[in-house]
Amino acid sequence: MCGMQSYPSYLLENAVNQLSKLPGIGKKTALRLALYLLKQDAQDVNNFAQAILLLKNEVKYCKVCKNIADTDVCQICSDASRQTDVVCVVETIKEVMLIENTGQYKGLYHVLGGVISPIDGVHPSDLEIESLVERVKAGGVKEVVMALSTTMEGDTTAYYIARKLADAPITLTTIARGVSVGDELQYADELTLGKSIVNRVPYTK
Amino acid sequence: MCGMQSYPSYLLENAVNQLSKLPGIGKKTALRLALYLLKQDAQDVNNFAQAILLLKNEVKYCKVCKNIADTDVCQICSDASRQTDVVCVVETIKEVMLIENTGQYKGLYHVLGGVISPIDGVHPSDLEIESLVERVKAGGVKEVVMALSTTMEGDTTAYYIARKLADAPITLTTIARGVSVGDELQYADELTLGKSIVNRVPYTK
Repeated sequence: MCGMQSYPSYLLENAVNQLSKLPGIGKKTALRLALYLLKQDAQDVNNFAQAILLLKNEVKYCKVCKNIADTDVCQICSDASRQTDVVCVVETIKEVMLIENTGQYKGLYHVLGGVISPIDGVHPSDLEIESLVERVKAGGVKEVVMALSTTMEGDTTAYYIARKLADAPITLTTIARGVSVGDELQYADELTLGKSIVNRVPYTK
Repeated sequence: MCGMQSYPSYLLENAVNQLSKLPGIGKKTALRLALYLLKQDAQDVNNFAQAILLLKNEVKYCKVCKNIADTDVCQICSDASRQTDVVCVVETIKEVMLIENTGQYKGLYHVLGGVISPIDGVHPSDLEIESLVERVKAGGVKEVVMALSTTMEGDTTAYYIARKLADAPITLTTIARGVSVGDELQYADELTLGKSIVNRVPYTK
């Protein structure tokens, strides 16, 4: 199947090429997905494509925490029952969802949009670090909890943020390293992750 | 990650639900794909969605062989250099692509759209069997080669077609069983598949 080049239709070839751009989807899987879509009702395929277009074109980013939202301020930031003086710094919205699922955290978030990684061309200015510093400076934040992956890039990012917030009158904490060092946060189980956010410890450089 | 229910945005949840309808794509992978798409340029995401919509709405099926095509008659059927009196019966366009890739076959095709499988609700009338019989009756076909999977359903379909074409003045052949019995055709390597179509043998009930 490796040498498959001759598609019977340009439209099929085009769809396969587009589908195979998705991470983890090769040409063979892309062809399977394209043929699957071709078998579905036109309305279902339309809904599928519209859902993707709507996601890209209509989704908003919360003004406060930069999380994905349907409104200017996200559900979490506008939830009056939450603790507004604790801000948990995470890489992406995946980690927000993971921590929310533990049910152990009632504060707010700040979504960086990634971690510092010069090798991948990700510099501090590409991330929501400046907006975090401004948010802390604006007052009302007593604690910043860093919940970043325990990788080189995560540690570098934590260190960079710690330096940026060195003069701020806040407690800087980091989630307990219940997550084994070197592991990515998204693969931790909920129990470990829940424990690690409850047992957070002061950040030491 | 199993209990992930709380999406920060309805648009994201909707996109994840749509993506997870694809075969082999679970909720976690769908979220990864959705977040990937969210990171791409608006134009790229638009091209992605349009490719899928175009495939579904604009693709044609060849009038003659029922293969996917961009025109009323597909590339293969309209290729004057091909042998028009030999018709190879296959399940789906995947098998057309596989056999084309072997470079060993110069005849035409007839795409059934599946195999008879009452357990999956696929009956002879759901397949392009009647159109095959009519195509043979119309004349000009000397040989019908059956290239169906060597499964119960494939064998049943071959038997059904053989009965339908019993009175036709044609040679009915089936690809050599170089493909081991019980295997699905799409997993055969090109060499075996190429050999099996060259060494096709008369169909015996």
